Amino acid sequence: MQLGMIGLGKMGHQLSLNLLDKDHQVVAHDINEDALMAIAKQGADTAASIAELVSKLSKPRTIWIMVSVGDATENVFTALLDHVEPGDRIIDGGNAYYKESISRGERSKEKGIYFFDCGTSGGIEGARNGACTMIGGDQEQFEELRPLFHDLTVENGYLHTGPVGSGHFLKMVHNGIEYGMMQAIAEGFDILDKSPFDYEYEKVANVWNHGSVIRSWLMELTESAFQKDPSLDQIKGIMHSSGEGKWTVETALDYEMAAPVITLALLMRYRSQEQDTFTGKVVAALRNEFGGHAVEKN
Amino acid sequence: MQLGMIGLGKMGHQLSLNLLDKDHQVVAHDINEDALMAIAKQGADTAASIAELVSKLSKPRTIWIMVSVGDATENVFTALLDHVEPGDRIIDGGNAYYKESISRGERSKEKGIYFFDCGTSGGIEGARNGACTMIGGDQEQFEELRPLFHDLTVENGYLHTGPVGSGHFLKMVHNGIEYGMMQAIAEGFDILDKSPFDYEYEKVANVWNHGSVIRSWLMELTESAFQKDPSLDQIKGIMHSSGEGKWTVETALDYEMAAPVITLALLMRYRSQEQDTFTGKVVAALRNEFGGHAVEKN
Amino acid sequence: MQLGMIGLGKMGHQLSLNLLDKDHQVVAHDINEDALMAIAKQGADTAASIAELVSKLSKPRTIWIMVSVGDATENVFTALLDHVEPGDRIIDGGNAYYKESISRGERSKEKGIYFFDCGTSGGIEGARNGACTMIGGDQEQFEELRPLFHDLTVENGYLHTGPVGSGHFLKMVHNGIEYGMMQAIAEGFDILDKSPFDYEYEKVANVWNHGSVIRSWLMELTESAFQKDPSLDQIKGIMHSSGEGKWTVETALDYEMAAPVITLALLMRYRSQEQDTFTGKVVAALRNEFGGHAVEKN
Amino acid sequence: MQLGMIGLGKMGHQLSLNLLDKDHQVVAHDINEDALMAIAKQGADTAASIAELVSKLSKPRTIWIMVSVGDATENVFTALLDHVEPGDRIIDGGNAYYKESISRGERSKEKGIYFFDCGTSGGIEGARNGACTMIGGDQEQFEELRPLFHDLTVENGYLHTGPVGSGHFLKMVHNGIEYGMMQAIAEGFDILDKSPFDYEYEKVANVWNHGSVIRSWLMELTESAFQKDPSLDQIKGIMHSSGEGKWTVETALDYEMAAPVITLALLMRYRSQEQDTFTGKVVAALRNEFGGHAVEKN
Repeated sequence: MQLGMIGLGKMGHQLSLNLLDKDHQVVAHDINEDALMAIAKQGADTAASIAELVSKLSKPRTIWIMVSVGDATENVFTALLDHVEPGDRIIDGGNAYYKESISRGERSKEKGIYFFDCGTSGGIEGARNGACTMIGGDQEQFEELRPLFHDLTVENGYLHTGPVGSGHFLKMVHNGIEYGMMQAIAEGFDILDKSPFDYEYEKVANVWNHGSVIRSWLMELTESAFQKDPSLDQIKGIMHSSGEGKWTVETALDYEMAAPVITLALLMRYRSQEQDTFTGKVVAALRNEFGGHAVEKN
Repeated sequence: MQLGMIGLGKMGHQLSLNLLDKDHQVVAHDINEDALMAIAKQGADTAASIAELVSKLSKPRTIWIMVSVGDATENVFTALLDHVEPGDRIIDGGNAYYKESISRGERSKEKGIYFFDCGTSGGIEGARNGACTMIGGDQEQFEELRPLFHDLTVENGYLHTGPVGSGHFLKMVHNGIEYGMMQAIAEGFDILDKSPFDYEYEKVANVWNHGSVIRSWLMELTESAFQKDPSLDQIKGIMHSSGEGKWTVETALDYEMAAPVITLALLMRYRSQEQDTFTGKVVAALRNEFGGHAVEKN
Repeated sequence: MQLGMIGLGKMGHQLSLNLLDKDHQVVAHDINEDALMAIAKQGADTAASIAELVSKLSKPRTIWIMVSVGDATENVFTALLDHVEPGDRIIDGGNAYYKESISRGERSKEKGIYFFDCGTSGGIEGARNGACTMIGGDQEQFEELRPLFHDLTVENGYLHTGPVGSGHFLKMVHNGIEYGMMQAIAEGFDILDKSPFDYEYEKVANVWNHGSVIRSWLMELTESAFQKDPSLDQIKGIMHSSGEGKWTVETALDYEMAAPVITLALLMRYRSQEQDTFTGKVVAALRNEFGGHAVEKN
Repeated sequence: MQLGMIGLGKMGHQLSLNLLDKDHQVVAHDINEDALMAIAKQGADTAASIAELVSKLSKPRTIWIMVSVGDATENVFTALLDHVEPGDRIIDGGNAYYKESISRGERSKEKGIYFFDCGTSGGIEGARNGACTMIGGDQEQFEELRPLFHDLTVENGYLHTGPVGSGHFLKMVHNGIEYGMMQAIAEGFDILDKSPFDYEYEKVANVWNHGSVIRSWLMELTESAFQKDPSLDQIKGIMHSSGEGKWTVETALDYEMAAPVITLALLMRYRSQEQDTFTGKVVAALRNEFGGHAVEKN
């Protein structure tokens, strides 16, 4: 198939290579010229603007947006909507908030455009060699795109999830689960680290990946991380986050349901971003007030 | 009444003063001679040893142990048990683990001694001017001690809670609740601190103490703490703990019940004791592994 | 002073009585005629419509909105804004979301109206006999209203908190703290209930209210609740919530801060609203899958 | 090799079959005669008593205990210790608490017996076809047993973890991680279940197992569970637990470290075991006290 790819960052570049490998024709655009040249060397056609990209594709066009969530996605989508024509398809492969995707689906529909929200998992390696995708959007049109998703993903690695919104929603929840699983694994190794025993963490992760109940790709990555830095001395334990975990928690709150493990996984990330907390100061001050317990001075 | 007081630390000294104020006769012992002299100046009789203290009291004796929880309590109790005689009463006013108090109650009973486990709340100020006590032990003998508890506490500030163990158990749970309440208050002020508004925390605590649902002694202490240091700049947010919170959580676990707020209040204290965590390092390393997300280097 | 009161529910009725007691002149409006008649009997003037209420007040008018949060507040505010005149003051005494209050402040300002967001705490009893209020809005105009807040509240029970929004924000956080404190207290009594001891909860709450660290109005209410129903046999443990706790948690998430105790207090409320959970089913099914552990059938 | 197997429950039976497949010689004992007969049919020799089992093995003997944790393990171990001789090896393949295993290691050492604490993961299927084992105990003797562990486990599925205690400790933490991962997965599906979308959970789990970040054996089991019962209508969400999760949490508490995700995973299991909670009753009663909020009657 022929495909337009807008956004050649970490993910977009690898997805393009993946597609080129499978003999798809890629017309790529990015505002970064180096990124454009890099993908051109690999066999992609390039476009200096969204308008040019659209003009280079035959109808009905299929255009994949792979830019940062938030303003970047909104700006690219809005610009793109001005150039595409009825019957064209836009796939947002980023991690947009599902309510925004639903709204983009409606804006697309008004113009006769088919919008697909595609959650993409598997990291950079997955983008290159076989990702996992969850796609919301028109069922009939999805059948047209099936070969594309088949080639981009590992075997059985794509699913049409329902109407627009359902793809990014599912990816959001996937990431919420990921937060919980990662924190669970990390807490486990923290307990090992404080234990009286002298475990080699790479070997622990390795044996857990062979036959145990908790064998998983995340445990394989854990093994790989400990292989590079056996006690993680070189890095700080500051856990950033990029939004999906927060959305998952907020969504659970909106449903008035308790998802404490996903929630706490998020809260501990936030806690790690603060060196000291005002919460802690208040509790320390109170202990001093009633019990005369010493406080530690700054 | 006449009372032996073993232990003249922060709490024992104030309790002794409180008793002397109410015209009780106090025979005090502490291994610290300065502490002994200080209380002697206030009108207490003193004893250089537990043996001497016991010998100075008329039968049936009433002896209050007010030393640190753990080894100190165990050592004093064991020594004391060698000197007291059938019909004497031992009150442990410290924060012993209730199962140890039950065991001390049994060891006392074998010798014909009445053991009381007395949880004491209200902080140092309460010890001096009127505490709150929860006392487990023999009901009939408790009636003999009632004037003592009446005088030591604020009006209606004492309760016979049942058999030995029930006093310290109740104090343990009291402290568990205290952990939760303190953390809740502290989190609230932390949110205020991050808000776009410019609250004066002392005034906030003050207004909350006048008519609001959360008016409480802890909020009064919060007001007092902010009066001394309006933004708590001078102290670190490291929250130590002295055992009862942990026992409360462990007890809830033994009952297979969910007490998440008390539990999290404890866990956040532990978290505050670590500058950086291995948990955080593992999560940061994993994010780097699958998403190429940057880690912060040490 | 003369005051218009819109909304004669539980809170508005009591606030009106409170104002009448202090010789303020109240013109009241409610769509419920019985409520109108009830307050008329107590000495209030009444108005059948917002327009009539406005017409009955002398300029500059002071009008207190005390209706349900959400649509009711929005509808009353919008209608009222059509009738008031520059220099008039609107006080929203309900629990609106602070961002909506900020927006109402801006809409008021465009018309030359002074808007105050007033968080009101202390429950129904407080509304009647002396509440606690936290008020955001114009400082100078607030001075004009000071006698009103003085009379409505307990001594020192009101605070001008800053610009519009700061009043409801502070009330929101107050309620977040309240959630945490209540859950902490409740978990404590739950542990007592599972203990081997046989505590009388009313007496426990009573002694804790006399000299202990956790003495508080909430503990007084706990005492009162146990006085009416010693083991709470007659009620279900379903914990509803009315929004402020959720807003507090969402606000903390927006600040990327960890407020785990307030958060868990909210999540346990949500958990209590479900008889059985899908989460539980999935875990039970998984345990069966890998360990052959029996599941309980529906 | 020749091996004695004590305990032919779900796990012991499958492990025996697994060993017989690999041409090991198994002498089995269980107090349940049906279990004995069943394994005899598969080619194992049997023993009616521990004494007989010991007498049937050539020295140095290797005996695997695979009975329930707690009293059963203690009783079997104690009986066995009376019959074995210096140089013999005892492997406890159950999930004993690591401190008890350390103690059994010491008791064994006094008699010249080599004790190994072997954590076994992988469920029943793993026991049959290839488990994952983590073994603490004497390094040199472990080399003698290596062929056994090699054959019992999947490739690379065994690890000598250090001294006695380190095997069961590692398995304990493995299970703690498992609790967290399972709860994270389950919360995710619960959010899906409350969403406006209409996901087929088996397909969701399937796609997540192909290329996503959260692909894992637990997700494969999730897929399998939904294949059998698409909406888990037939089972209740009551989550039992068998001890390791609790030990993990208690161990983290002893290290004064925050492991909130593993902890909450455990607490939600406990919560699921109660239909209604006293905690909930207290909070509901308090809301009624101060706000007049309706309670739901029993």
